[in-house]
Amino acid sequence: MTRPAPENVDVVASLGAGPIGGGWSAHFLARGYDVVSYIHDPAEEAALRTFIDTAWVNLEELGLQPGASRNRLTVTSDLEAAVASAGFIQESAPERLDLKQALYARLGDIVPGDVVISSSTSGLTMTEIQKSCATPARTVVGHPFNPPYLLPLVEIVGGEKSSPEAVEWARAFYEAAGKAPLVLAKEIPGFVATRLQEALWREALHMVANGEATPEQIDVALMNGPAPRMAFQGQCMAFHVACGAGGMATNLDQFGPALKLPWTRLEAPELTQELRDRMVNGCNEIAGDRPFEEMVEERDRAIVAILKSIRQIKGEAS
Amino acid sequence: MTRPAPENVDVVASLGAGPIGGGWSAHFLARGYDVVSYIHDPAEEAALRTFIDTAWVNLEELGLQPGASRNRLTVTSDLEAAVASAGFIQESAPERLDLKQALYARLGDIVPGDVVISSSTSGLTMTEIQKSCATPARTVVGHPFNPPYLLPLVEIVGGEKSSPEAVEWARAFYEAAGKAPLVLAKEIPGFVATRLQEALWREALHMVANGEATPEQIDVALMNGPAPRMAFQGQCMAFHVACGAGGMATNLDQFGPALKLPWTRLEAPELTQELRDRMVNGCNEIAGDRPFEEMVEERDRAIVAILKSIRQIKGEAS
Repeated sequence: MTRPAPENVDVVASLGAGPIGGGWSAHFLARGYDVVSYIHDPAEEAALRTFIDTAWVNLEELGLQPGASRNRLTVTSDLEAAVASAGFIQESAPERLDLKQALYARLGDIVPGDVVISSSTSGLTMTEIQKSCATPARTVVGHPFNPPYLLPLVEIVGGEKSSPEAVEWARAFYEAAGKAPLVLAKEIPGFVATRLQEALWREALHMVANGEATPEQIDVALMNGPAPRMAFQGQCMAFHVACGAGGMATNLDQFGPALKLPWTRLEAPELTQELRDRMVNGCNEIAGDRPFEEMVEERDRAIVAILKSIRQIKGEAS
Repeated sequence: MTRPAPENVDVVASLGAGPIGGGWSAHFLARGYDVVSYIHDPAEEAALRTFIDTAWVNLEELGLQPGASRNRLTVTSDLEAAVASAGFIQESAPERLDLKQALYARLGDIVPGDVVISSSTSGLTMTEIQKSCATPARTVVGHPFNPPYLLPLVEIVGGEKSSPEAVEWARAFYEAAGKAPLVLAKEIPGFVATRLQEALWREALHMVANGEATPEQIDVALMNGPAPRMAFQGQCMAFHVACGAGGMATNLDQFGPALKLPWTRLEAPELTQELRDRMVNGCNEIAGDRPFEEMVEERDRAIVAILKSIRQIKGEAS
């Protein structure tokens, strides 16, 4: 097997039977691939199949690709057999460096040709993982967000020995596989999404530690405040659109001084001209030539739809 | 006018013609109140009415209360007339301390009886704002999240001279008015939601400053990763449910060491036994006796609905 074109992959090997490995298997099945699921212990097969059955209900609701079927799942605890015919390998082994290094040493030898091997790691870097791998050029990180069968994000980044071609191939493959790929400029700890979430999480822990809020209040605040908006716009565009025609420039000029206030225990960066330009230009590029009134109106429709969805599901559940 | 029972308020005065003051007017109209909107400059009336008309489309979609009508809006630039018959005052004047202090000095004299005056301030404290007010016991903060006519959160906190009765009255009133009130234990800068959002925002600025991510990548990461989940679960329960039957305890035991990793520039608090207990007990209380499988399934249905909503609106817009 040599590396196929990203859009011509037929068989995906998903290594790992946990919520991430199982979640990837469910996702690839729903997108119409043949999936070979490698499990360390044959006893895990029943739980894996139950996990996929449960995910399938929501995957059907979200929309399956033509030909998608759970019958196209093969489960094996023979690693060599698992990877033999795969055009892509998604690795979701436990998050221990020694274990991953040993696994990549073996995968480097047994995965045919230059087939791309992508790791679901959330906390390790590919530079570390690929250290004992004899064929590291085709290894990359492809970090999903839990649950991986529903949330579209995949953060992609190579290690020191990864080839730019493998990174680009992974991006194109994930896109063809219905994901929202994000290629990182640098191998930074926690990647992008987890860093953002972790900043928020650490501040939440500070507030609970100081008796300023309870866990319930943290969640009430997020669910009824920033999160529904963030789900549709992210945060840069949320501020850009909220500031009217002046957009991000108005936001930074108006609220820049607030960066020095002790809101959160996180110290802010200096708001240099360069940082200001990057923020403003970035938002203007996303907005294109759309007037802000149109973006506000669209945001509002999205918030309504999101709130109605949530309300309906909470209503059904209670 | 003396303070009515929270559920018996008929007339609300909304002070301010900006997106927050206008947004509050739209919200209270949609909930079936008579609204007197005070604007500083009569020339602002047309823009205010257009703003409310635009918001109304989405408020109708979200569901109006019986009797709700834009005909029940009165606009005036006579402050005394605006507050004369109101059972509740929502103040959304510009975010300048000197201006708010002068306004509360006046409101303290002209707002009849012990009618509650609530400030939309996001960055000032009521202790500062109420300094020159002769009747400060009935003044509180009622901080909304933008857009205030759609996002349900209102953070409520008194200043040093506010009475606990006024704070509780405001909570009950906002609840009756269809909001999700959150009474804060302490007057902390930025309150709860803005602190959480600000931690995330400062980390985003750090990443852009360091060339680790672009604004577009920040938003792609949030929209396709943590945000749809956070809109339904917040963050404490997102971790609690993601960790299976072990919940938050498993999360803290497993990822506690990660708090020391340089994921984000925010230093984490010490994970003391007390903090651990508060987090774990808080999540267990929210979960009640519901099995985690049920919560996972509900989360997944919510994510599907949210993603479908967003997809539909982006599809309509493109």
